[in-house]
Amino acid sequence: MPKQDRSRATRQRLLEAAVACLAEHGWAGSTVAAVAERAGVSRGAAQHHFPTREDLFTAAVEYVAEERSTALRDLFPGGPADRRAVVTALVDLYTGPLFRAALHLWVAASNEDQLRARVTELEARVGRETHRIAVDLLGADESRPGARETVQGFLDMARGLGLANLLTDDTARRARVVAQWADLLDESLR
Amino acid sequence: MPKQDRSRATRQRLLEAAVACLAEHGWAGSTVAAVAERAGVSRGAAQHHFPTREDLFTAAVEYVAEERSTALRDLFPGGPADRRAVVTALVDLYTGPLFRAALHLWVAASNEDQLRARVTELEARVGRETHRIAVDLLGADESRPGARETVQGFLDMARGLGLANLLTDDTARRARVVAQWADLLDESLR
Repeated sequence: MPKQDRSRATRQRLLEAAVACLAEHGWAGSTVAAVAERAGVSRGAAQHHFPTREDLFTAAVEYVAEERSTALRDLFPGGPADRRAVVTALVDLYTGPLFRAALHLWVAASNEDQLRARVTELEARVGRETHRIAVDLLGADESRPGARETVQGFLDMARGLGLANLLTDDTARRARVVAQWADLLDESLR
Repeated sequence: MPKQDRSRATRQRLLEAAVACLAEHGWAGSTVAAVAERAGVSRGAAQHHFPTREDLFTAAVEYVAEERSTALRDLFPGGPADRRAVVTALVDLYTGPLFRAALHLWVAASNEDQLRARVTELEARVGRETHRIAVDLLGADESRPGARETVQGFLDMARGLGLANLLTDDTARRARVVAQWADLLDESLR
């Protein structure tokens, strides 16, 4: 592999290991050294890519969020699709390791000044992109009064469902809630 | 004050200090000693009431959640009320120090085995009670298909709105989302 490709591959391994580490061990258990070890990368190489712990973990959450956004768009290549399928796919964004990792980062940022500004900015960027995807795939006409807030409230619900899945497996209840809210959204956006 | 009353007052001071401490400093910064100091109680007295850190903080979140439930019912003594007012009051449950404290406890519990079982059980109890209040005050007829899931999804949305308020002041956006979803809920539950 050319040097540049190897460097990119190392970076990617570090980012993926960082999200997994955050999701499993939380912010307190997530250090550059722990991630380097998990990724099979030397500590020096990890620090070359990410000088600080904050750099590594905010970059990791952003990278994985972008990957998931791309995957979501690829699921519906024709744009607006069946609303129940889109609602289910959007809610799925909030029930996996990425959401757990992001949640640990948000909560840590609420008490740590070095993190707060960066995570706030990251969250705004990721939130805008998710909103854009949701509007597109749900075929929502934001020029209609209330349509924007309907989509926003639905994404807030999706985040709440992610939270409800943190300590217990909430799959069965979630499926029923999602089915009902997909109908509510469908009626409201029609 | 009789001894028993003094003991109850001390306990209450500890519980309120514990929620404030969790909300401000997170789980890592929340110890029995820190709470005792904040409450102006000796460490020995604190440990008499709450032998372990887990005892203190789960009891604190439960106590404050009960206080808030009672306050919420007292806001609408006549039972079912104007849905927009009820929706706003329910969402308010998730934007203050209690929600921040509970969030810190949930997230810590997701990585700590001593906490997980207790917080899971606490969360189920508090969640059931909040659902019951929401059903009552929204005047939802749970025998109608979908009504239960409409209310559940709304409470998930309220939790998601709490999360969105963690790092930034989300008041203005939240008010618009709440206004829109109060209308959608009203139509759906009518």
